[in-house]
Amino acid sequence: MPLEKMFVSDARDAAHVGKTVLIQGWIRTRRDSKGGFSFLEINDGSCMGNIQVIADADLANYKDEIQRLSAGCSVAIEGEVKASEGKQATEIQASQVTVLGWADDFPLQKKRHSFEKLREWAHIRARSNTFGAVARVRNQICQSIHQFFHENNFLYVHTPIITASDCEGAGEMFKVTTLDLDRLAKSGGPVNYEYDFFDKPSFLTVSGQLEAETYATALGRVYTFGPTFRAENSNTSRHLSEFWMIEPEAAFFDLADDMALAESFLRKILSDVLNRCDEDLQFFDQRIQKGLIESLRKVAETPFQHMTYTDAIKVLENCGESFEFPIAWGTDLQAEHERYLTEKHVAGPLILTDYPSTIKPFYMRLSDDRKTVAAMDVLVPGVGEIIGGSQREERLDVLTQRMAEMDLREEDYWWYLDLRRYGTVPHAGFGLGLERLVQYTTGMANIRDVIPFPRTPGNAEF
Amino acid sequence: MPLEKMFVSDARDAAHVGKTVLIQGWIRTRRDSKGGFSFLEINDGSCMGNIQVIADADLANYKDEIQRLSAGCSVAIEGEVKASEGKQATEIQASQVTVLGWADDFPLQKKRHSFEKLREWAHIRARSNTFGAVARVRNQICQSIHQFFHENNFLYVHTPIITASDCEGAGEMFKVTTLDLDRLAKSGGPVNYEYDFFDKPSFLTVSGQLEAETYATALGRVYTFGPTFRAENSNTSRHLSEFWMIEPEAAFFDLADDMALAESFLRKILSDVLNRCDEDLQFFDQRIQKGLIESLRKVAETPFQHMTYTDAIKVLENCGESFEFPIAWGTDLQAEHERYLTEKHVAGPLILTDYPSTIKPFYMRLSDDRKTVAAMDVLVPGVGEIIGGSQREERLDVLTQRMAEMDLREEDYWWYLDLRRYGTVPHAGFGLGLERLVQYTTGMANIRDVIPFPRTPGNAEF
Repeated sequence: MPLEKMFVSDARDAAHVGKTVLIQGWIRTRRDSKGGFSFLEINDGSCMGNIQVIADADLANYKDEIQRLSAGCSVAIEGEVKASEGKQATEIQASQVTVLGWADDFPLQKKRHSFEKLREWAHIRARSNTFGAVARVRNQICQSIHQFFHENNFLYVHTPIITASDCEGAGEMFKVTTLDLDRLAKSGGPVNYEYDFFDKPSFLTVSGQLEAETYATALGRVYTFGPTFRAENSNTSRHLSEFWMIEPEAAFFDLADDMALAESFLRKILSDVLNRCDEDLQFFDQRIQKGLIESLRKVAETPFQHMTYTDAIKVLENCGESFEFPIAWGTDLQAEHERYLTEKHVAGPLILTDYPSTIKPFYMRLSDDRKTVAAMDVLVPGVGEIIGGSQREERLDVLTQRMAEMDLREEDYWWYLDLRRYGTVPHAGFGLGLERLVQYTTGMANIRDVIPFPRTPGNAEF
Repeated sequence: MPLEKMFVSDARDAAHVGKTVLIQGWIRTRRDSKGGFSFLEINDGSCMGNIQVIADADLANYKDEIQRLSAGCSVAIEGEVKASEGKQATEIQASQVTVLGWADDFPLQKKRHSFEKLREWAHIRARSNTFGAVARVRNQICQSIHQFFHENNFLYVHTPIITASDCEGAGEMFKVTTLDLDRLAKSGGPVNYEYDFFDKPSFLTVSGQLEAETYATALGRVYTFGPTFRAENSNTSRHLSEFWMIEPEAAFFDLADDMALAESFLRKILSDVLNRCDEDLQFFDQRIQKGLIESLRKVAETPFQHMTYTDAIKVLENCGESFEFPIAWGTDLQAEHERYLTEKHVAGPLILTDYPSTIKPFYMRLSDDRKTVAAMDVLVPGVGEIIGGSQREERLDVLTQRMAEMDLREEDYWWYLDLRRYGTVPHAGFGLGLERLVQYTTGMANIRDVIPFPRTPGNAEF
């Protein structure tokens, strides 16, 4: 029978019993039996689980090599897939074990390391069960995002990463420069940007929304999916300096359309992860967050409720809970408030709408009451806000008045205002951070553990 | 009959004749007939073509509004889809025309503007035929890339954008900093990076390959798709300071696997674009590059030929062509050489392999002849090199020796070397620039015209 190259994920499938296969991967454990053979657990990243390989003592390299194998060694196994009597459906009876690479002093031994320690080993932590599972779930979410928007006629657009526009003043920005800093320090000043690459101060983007609007008002439906940056000195488990954002934007959408889009988007992501990452989710459910699968399934299956901000304030004022932060119409909701509403008040996904204009950015559409804007935040149990969006202000006069109120200069936004000068249309969109979504679907507590190489204050190694 | 909201791309389909629809989009042209009605050409970005709307003079707002409509105005049209006797299959007989936004002095009038001029109007150029078509083709290529890798069991991984590692010295890098440059300029120096965000000099990435290798050697097959940066002061039609790269990396792949992957990848992209962007490609074929479709089809259908660099040098030395740059074993091939080989010598796609080690980066696998490395470049007619890749050096001793020869310090690459210390495996990958691929499939001459907001020296507006 010809040799068939196969992933571990396939070799674990009983459908392949009887086949002669080549498996390539890394040793997770070796266990020597008294009966004169060894069990090798092999993982190749194609799935959470390992395949068990039985290596008999009569293999030529049994004593010299196989009995020296340790966690982290790379091997190529030829053998026959057999039905197993153990927990797994199959195992492999090896006819040949080739050692590709040894792994003396491999840091990831069987004992469990803290996630904090593993962050120092970001270059090898994907070889652990937890970080392999995170990578697979993150990949599935990304694929589902692209599929969802493609199926719904949204075009993927790339908004700029380096920008001379500071968008909405959404946060502190990183500067991008080619100036020689050592020479600059000795220059005595002032900074002459004529010598800098872009001839003016330039920054890393905090959001692609405004640029996405230029494409939505030309092509109808678009979305961004790219890195965004915050230079805030926040050393918390919820903040990254570099993270990936998804920002759909659709012409001819009002707030109701936007809410419907956000709901079907989240439903698609959750059901795909539940359907396609079962083994990884089982792991997270058992090891990271008990009840995770049940809570994701519930959100995937429950119609999202809607409530205005004003009604939410009334609920919070009358609920009898004691909150750390005070509640008053006109102030931002804190995580504790959001979580009370979604977890206790409606016990399911909840979309809050119609926030006070004073706590929202200038581009959100002013409602007829002149006090609120057509904004929406999607809240889910266990997390609070996971998506934020709005209908955009399409009326030039209202927009420029709000900009004036917020001390924004029209000349800095000439191109954004042009979208309202030439064939303006109602439009809406939302934004969400990929890493928050990965945290939510895996239960991982620290956001640094759901992106391969986290950037935080003081950390940009690799 | 109920009103059905519909894209122009659907309304142009004869299958919808008889339906009452709502179309929303922008006016491309208005033509008034002497018979007492007007033709409105409407585009909504869903496809290249417009739908023709017939607005009769008996509509209530005919004189006041419809006859004032001009290019760029946004409208909502209600009406019935009818079979058309013109070039298109259908047209719409309007029962209502609602003006959403006027467009006085809209810069994109019917007369054609130079692409150079349109670059100054990057915020509205997607409303033109050419840039709308580029956006749709670019979107299709991106979708196809994700589909291709997903179907071939590659995981999408996000490698870092900000990095303190300078990778392979692949090019000049942008610095990222939160230092106050004005204050720095007055400080007299030296620069104290303890006050900078990451506590050390940090940069924008030029490639995610090395980091991708950390995930390939954990999870098997991965790919990156993200922005990369070059701070070179190149003001040419072939260079961008910010562009999107795709970099697959696969464990247990040798050079032959890598070449097969690159060929099936390119075939998938081209056939998807040919099958799904027909109308846009027809436009590019007629207006931008005659014969484009035929040349793409040929590459999509022709098996890629293989040739070693050494054989290529012999062909070039003996072909009788006069080249601007001299040919000698050990020197890099220039575009003129590559194009001769792919266009004239084999007249089809060609993969060159086994380049001299001296002209390739340190991480490429040294061959047994000790003179060449297991590298490959994919060349296509009309462009030259479109993909570059290699098998990677998996042997620690060979890798460190090559690094020493190239004056690279081991301590800067400790984590990369760890991949060879712990369970090293043969692996390979390649890289390509998205924008080159979009140029190739559209025939667009200037790379600044295939990315929404191009970044080049002096240009970071928006």
